Amino acid sequence: MIDLLDLAAELVDVPSESHQETALADLFESRLHSASHLAVHRLGDNVVARSEQGREHRIVIAGHLDTVPANNNQGARIEGDRLYGLGACDMKGGLAAQLATALAVNESAVDVTYVFYSCEEVAAQHNGLKQLFDLRPELVVGDVALLGEPTSATIEAGCQGTLRVKAVYKGERAHTARPWKGLNAIHRLGRVLESLNSYEGRRPVVDGCEYREAMQAVYVEGGVAGNVVPDEATLTVNLRYAPDRSPEEAQSHVAEQLQPYDELIIDDHAQGAMPALGHPLLRTLITRNELEVRAKLGWTDVARFAEHGIPASNFGAGDASIAHTRNEFVERHEIELVHSALLDLLTTGVD
Amino acid sequence: MIDLLDLAAELVDVPSESHQETALADLFESRLHSASHLAVHRLGDNVVARSEQGREHRIVIAGHLDTVPANNNQGARIEGDRLYGLGACDMKGGLAAQLATALAVNESAVDVTYVFYSCEEVAAQHNGLKQLFDLRPELVVGDVALLGEPTSATIEAGCQGTLRVKAVYKGERAHTARPWKGLNAIHRLGRVLESLNSYEGRRPVVDGCEYREAMQAVYVEGGVAGNVVPDEATLTVNLRYAPDRSPEEAQSHVAEQLQPYDELIIDDHAQGAMPALGHPLLRTLITRNELEVRAKLGWTDVARFAEHGIPASNFGAGDASIAHTRNEFVERHEIELVHSALLDLLTTGVD
Repeated sequence: MIDLLDLAAELVDVPSESHQETALADLFESRLHSASHLAVHRLGDNVVARSEQGREHRIVIAGHLDTVPANNNQGARIEGDRLYGLGACDMKGGLAAQLATALAVNESAVDVTYVFYSCEEVAAQHNGLKQLFDLRPELVVGDVALLGEPTSATIEAGCQGTLRVKAVYKGERAHTARPWKGLNAIHRLGRVLESLNSYEGRRPVVDGCEYREAMQAVYVEGGVAGNVVPDEATLTVNLRYAPDRSPEEAQSHVAEQLQPYDELIIDDHAQGAMPALGHPLLRTLITRNELEVRAKLGWTDVARFAEHGIPASNFGAGDASIAHTRNEFVERHEIELVHSALLDLLTTGVD
Repeated sequence: MIDLLDLAAELVDVPSESHQETALADLFESRLHSASHLAVHRLGDNVVARSEQGREHRIVIAGHLDTVPANNNQGARIEGDRLYGLGACDMKGGLAAQLATALAVNESAVDVTYVFYSCEEVAAQHNGLKQLFDLRPELVVGDVALLGEPTSATIEAGCQGTLRVKAVYKGERAHTARPWKGLNAIHRLGRVLESLNSYEGRRPVVDGCEYREAMQAVYVEGGVAGNVVPDEATLTVNLRYAPDRSPEEAQSHVAEQLQPYDELIIDDHAQGAMPALGHPLLRTLITRNELEVRAKLGWTDVARFAEHGIPASNFGAGDASIAHTRNEFVERHEIELVHSALLDLLTTGVD
């Protein structure tokens, strides 16, 4: 049987920073061609492989091929049962588990679609999964999706939404020797920042998962000259909100917190995804492997599936808290756990 | 007799933006040479003219030759008794009153030093009066000084100090989806800005003049990325303080207001000047002309004289609140009032 840590190391040794995934996509494409039950499609550096066995359910197993930029950590290095190197944690460990599953199964109890895509680590407009949904949606639909982002081999369910808003506060210029002739726009931020400072995010429990909302100032800017009362200040905040809150509710919640602004600009908004743990495929996966289930606080492409009506969860190897760090690594037992759980689900099907 | 508004118009028609005062300095130098009681000195674009009559008192009458940059308002335009054009208010009206005084007096009851200098409207290191104090202090000393900055022909006494300080607030980075793992440096500004917002400046009365202190945020900056809890924010504030407060007291006052900062950087500090209205020359000028006396809230070169132990006041034509505006102007009667008061002081001497 294939050694999963060696396979992950092989994947780490094929550099695939965002926008440069061609070599790794080639590797996936050629390996998947050897799996006779899968029809392989290629769109740019995205590779899709689908079984067509007419089963009742179809599961989508997805992972991104790209890594963040290198930080003097290129190339695989195995120490005992641990693999170091750029992308080891995020997410070549998970990719190894997924690819090995595709190659190990000949006939499955549920239909399966593997989606290996490019440019997850960069701005959303480049995202390979987005491209597929835009251009070839029929290739990526399914009943439920599992995304191989690092979750330490637990199920991280759904994801929170993220809303970034820029609020503009106006004032009136004056000389700082006579400030009472003007209105200081920077001073107007005081009350807003005080209220952000004491903001207590909701912690709703949805489908058994506790989410935790947060609102944080991420940028502040203002000032005209060293002797001028400033007439404008801007504050950018990022709200992370639980999936039981609608995007519209999120916007009005932020707007209320930032009162009394003069102008409000939506910088970025990606809604969250409900955990949807009730789906039989997810329930089976969790129960049969006694997987720990947690709420996903960050935003992931899970939300992109949810947006298209496909319940999804994160399930991958590696500790998310060391993703994007120079010394990221992944443990053999997590890759093996993810692999065996996927294999079991595909071969045994729904309970 | 010379028409003072025409003389001011002539001065406006010689462009003299900062660093380009040569033509105007030439004009002053040649006119002053015609006043037989004055010895004329030139240092760069600074012109000094001194009487040497061995009088008990010496008064320094000073004005800057430069203007702020043009704003489509070059050239003189007289409408009735009002002169428009770049520098009309700040301070060619005052210069006309001073130059005409120099040319009208042959023998004076007090010795007099005229100082016409460059680069007052730009950074302090270029200031012509500073150059003179640094290089030829013997040329510019005196018992008392009058600066021709626009004061609407009132006496604006002393000046407030100005202190600009940059405070740095530290935090700890974290992902905005898990902000409790970090510390938001921007949020830390909330309490400080709230306290600046409610800051009530002291209004001490010194020598009969009411000063009015003020503390204003002039710059704010912070932020790392749209999804990162920021680990640093900086706030720059400008304190304008009355001359009864020492520079050291000013610094500790600001430091106290900006608590709890992590670092404090003095950007700029120029101390104020006491009104010193008790000097016989100033008292005579005020009493004999029934001049209104006010505190000077802004910082002017008066403080530079004070720093060298020379009591000084602002006394010039033009309304300071329209200085540096495109439509600045000066009124004939103010130029004439300043001129006649100076002439009277020089010819009649101390009461």
